[in-house]
Amino acid sequence: MSENLNLIIDTLTELLENKKYAEFMQEIDKLNPIDAADFLSLLPENKISLAFRLLKKDIAAEIFAELDSDLQEMIITRLSDKEIKDMLEELYIDDAVDMLEEMPANAVKRVMRNATPETREEINRFLSYPEKSAGSVMTSEYIDLHKSMTCEQAVARIRRIGLDKETVYVAYVTDEKRILQGVVALKQLLFAKPEDLIGDIMDTNVVYAHTHDDRETVANMISRYDMIALPIVDKEERLVGLVTVDDALDVLETEATEDIEKMAAMLPSEKPYLKTSVWEVWKQRVPWLILLMITATFTGAIITHYEAAIGTYAILTAFLPMLMNTGGNAGGQTSVTVIRGLSLDEIAMGDVLRVLWKELRVGVLCGVTLSAATFLKVMALDFRFQATTVLENGTVQNNLLIAAVICATVFGAIIFAKLVGTLLPIGAKRIGLDPAVMASPFITTIVDAVTLIIYFAVASTLLGI
Amino acid sequence: MSENLNLIIDTLTELLENKKYAEFMQEIDKLNPIDAADFLSLLPENKISLAFRLLKKDIAAEIFAELDSDLQEMIITRLSDKEIKDMLEELYIDDAVDMLEEMPANAVKRVMRNATPETREEINRFLSYPEKSAGSVMTSEYIDLHKSMTCEQAVARIRRIGLDKETVYVAYVTDEKRILQGVVALKQLLFAKPEDLIGDIMDTNVVYAHTHDDRETVANMISRYDMIALPIVDKEERLVGLVTVDDALDVLETEATEDIEKMAAMLPSEKPYLKTSVWEVWKQRVPWLILLMITATFTGAIITHYEAAIGTYAILTAFLPMLMNTGGNAGGQTSVTVIRGLSLDEIAMGDVLRVLWKELRVGVLCGVTLSAATFLKVMALDFRFQATTVLENGTVQNNLLIAAVICATVFGAIIFAKLVGTLLPIGAKRIGLDPAVMASPFITTIVDAVTLIIYFAVASTLLGI
Repeated sequence: MSENLNLIIDTLTELLENKKYAEFMQEIDKLNPIDAADFLSLLPENKISLAFRLLKKDIAAEIFAELDSDLQEMIITRLSDKEIKDMLEELYIDDAVDMLEEMPANAVKRVMRNATPETREEINRFLSYPEKSAGSVMTSEYIDLHKSMTCEQAVARIRRIGLDKETVYVAYVTDEKRILQGVVALKQLLFAKPEDLIGDIMDTNVVYAHTHDDRETVANMISRYDMIALPIVDKEERLVGLVTVDDALDVLETEATEDIEKMAAMLPSEKPYLKTSVWEVWKQRVPWLILLMITATFTGAIITHYEAAIGTYAILTAFLPMLMNTGGNAGGQTSVTVIRGLSLDEIAMGDVLRVLWKELRVGVLCGVTLSAATFLKVMALDFRFQATTVLENGTVQNNLLIAAVICATVFGAIIFAKLVGTLLPIGAKRIGLDPAVMASPFITTIVDAVTLIIYFAVASTLLGI
Repeated sequence: MSENLNLIIDTLTELLENKKYAEFMQEIDKLNPIDAADFLSLLPENKISLAFRLLKKDIAAEIFAELDSDLQEMIITRLSDKEIKDMLEELYIDDAVDMLEEMPANAVKRVMRNATPETREEINRFLSYPEKSAGSVMTSEYIDLHKSMTCEQAVARIRRIGLDKETVYVAYVTDEKRILQGVVALKQLLFAKPEDLIGDIMDTNVVYAHTHDDRETVANMISRYDMIALPIVDKEERLVGLVTVDDALDVLETEATEDIEKMAAMLPSEKPYLKTSVWEVWKQRVPWLILLMITATFTGAIITHYEAAIGTYAILTAFLPMLMNTGGNAGGQTSVTVIRGLSLDEIAMGDVLRVLWKELRVGVLCGVTLSAATFLKVMALDFRFQATTVLENGTVQNNLLIAAVICATVFGAIIFAKLVGTLLPIGAKRIGLDPAVMASPFITTIVDAVTLIIYFAVASTLLGI
């Protein structure tokens, strides 16, 4: 497969260099639009716009839709008004809208001036849907049928209008007011008798969503029901578009990447890493680093506050990294599990008590295991099985008590971390924030502070300092 | 939509309680198989197997495929040999294989005894594909055509054999040896003339994969090319099955969840959180907690080693949490970006130098910003703009030098963290390990240790301790 692809690309490069444009056009037709877009992206700008002029209109539009937004902008500025007009009529509305959303205002104006009034109206409607809504990822190119049609008439209609549609494999049945009544898959038409009525074979139990629903919810529905496309209706329940399974795939991948970025203390980016500039990466990362640095100074303040205790038992300091890491890791595990569960609709807001109860039990199990492991490790490695140690200044240090302080802190830190790891993401979602920002780095800071307080509180009680 | 679903479920419960089985069967037919499976899962075991006996064979198989593995096992033990046989013939091979993979050996034996020889052979072939390979997620129910057929004959063949196939929307053209020659979408047949030859309209530039390819790579191909299904061939390039887009969706969701779990220091699980027992969750989480606890003790050992220095300048301890957190966060940002890029095939193994160079520059930018912020914060809040402080024991502490030590450590820690965050995941992939385990928690431990070494090294040089 990939050898084949490389072969075509070599041929294309050669044809373009030798100005054999007719053959170039034939050859590029063999490529998938996305591969063609990748190939063109590597050419110098003047070659790209030359190639674009050579392409057939429909193929040019398909490839154009796959290009990065900066290249789209470059091409648009080099096209004539007439060429922009042709391109717009060939593009699917959602691709045209995606392009316009990334363009500077003057380029948008020029494109809109060249659109037909109907296209302009439709583009404006799409631009008005909220970011990350179903409306913003849907396309309006669907096939509509009527209940009273026969299957033969329906197939004829699909043949007539289907070529420009996003998919021909599902058609929607609507009434005069465009209210959605049912869905018919092309598969059903294939196996039905020509004289069967659409009203009789259609599936009336339609899974659909509204334009203002969250795009991730819509993608999860498509995934759950293994759909090829999901119809989208407006507030008056009129059919206005559909979201296809390949759009759902893109949405789920983007949302997963965004969640992962937020969980790792970054601002999300929709661009692939290698296409993001160093400055943009810096802008994604530095705000959280600074915020977390500032919050970590509270942890430092707690240490300063207990400086006296540290002076007496300097060995307590040696366990600080282990205690803080363990708490942070335990909290991170829980918060990330909860965040992912919320994203996949596996955990609902009503499940908070179930999750808390489960995490409490998991916390007790993990706490007991870790405390036991810590006790063994501390007594064996740090104290070489000695119950007491005589320090340089002559004080007798009770090693068993110190090990007990450490184990109690491990246990307390884990329980606290599991509870905070549950409550923060769910709480964030309840007040309308994104749960993903409540992941490990954020929780680590809180857990660190509380771990220290537990540590020094237990130490002062047991060791009497 | 969901009100409608709840209504049907209420009706179903009532019908089952009042033993109105004929109406129950009619009503459950209105549900999507996955909704029906969710509904049945909530019933007591004897009701579930009763309901299963009432269902039509094909619907029973569809719902069965959506059930959790423990329920599948329960039902299988309650079915007669004849009923198992019927169920097997209705199930898609990949669903049957998924079921068998989760079942205890004696249940598997009973199922296999009741399979026809052909089904048994096919199941055995599927069971032999490596875990997480394309073969393990594909299905063998595809439609094959021949070059010499006319479109009319092709449509007739699809009508004849298509009902049992995973999809009727793509068909594959093969020769006598089953070697893949081309692909035809149903859409092409819809718009072709009845007398056109398949050999003339088929697309010979087929995107395909091998049975042993990674399932994530295959899912990424389906996503990239917006395919409904991707054909899978064996080592001899013979067509053996296909992976559909809805399977690709499941694969990508599962892989993203597994990556996220590994990144948060957990062993991955394929079960939804709320369906996982407390013990299973504990088993997922405790190994990493113990491992990271042990590695964190090295950090503790470093602190012990520099105890003398801490004694002189106790204030150095107060900055430990901030320095370690900042290093850990900076490393986590990079490693998670690299891991996700590798998963999505956005970063290739050959990109390692490009990524390193980019991260180095981002590291310098972040390092400079954070150092400057730290300097301001330390001088303003901790030292109240005093260049020196006289300590209780009379020593004069040079605050500017201490601030310089902290800033230099922040800078060094960030640069080191960014480089380790790049190299560890890519290195892990090169030696065949999963990059995702090289995420934040693991890197935090390494970065913590190195940050401390930098901190104390800079401190002893600048402060002369």
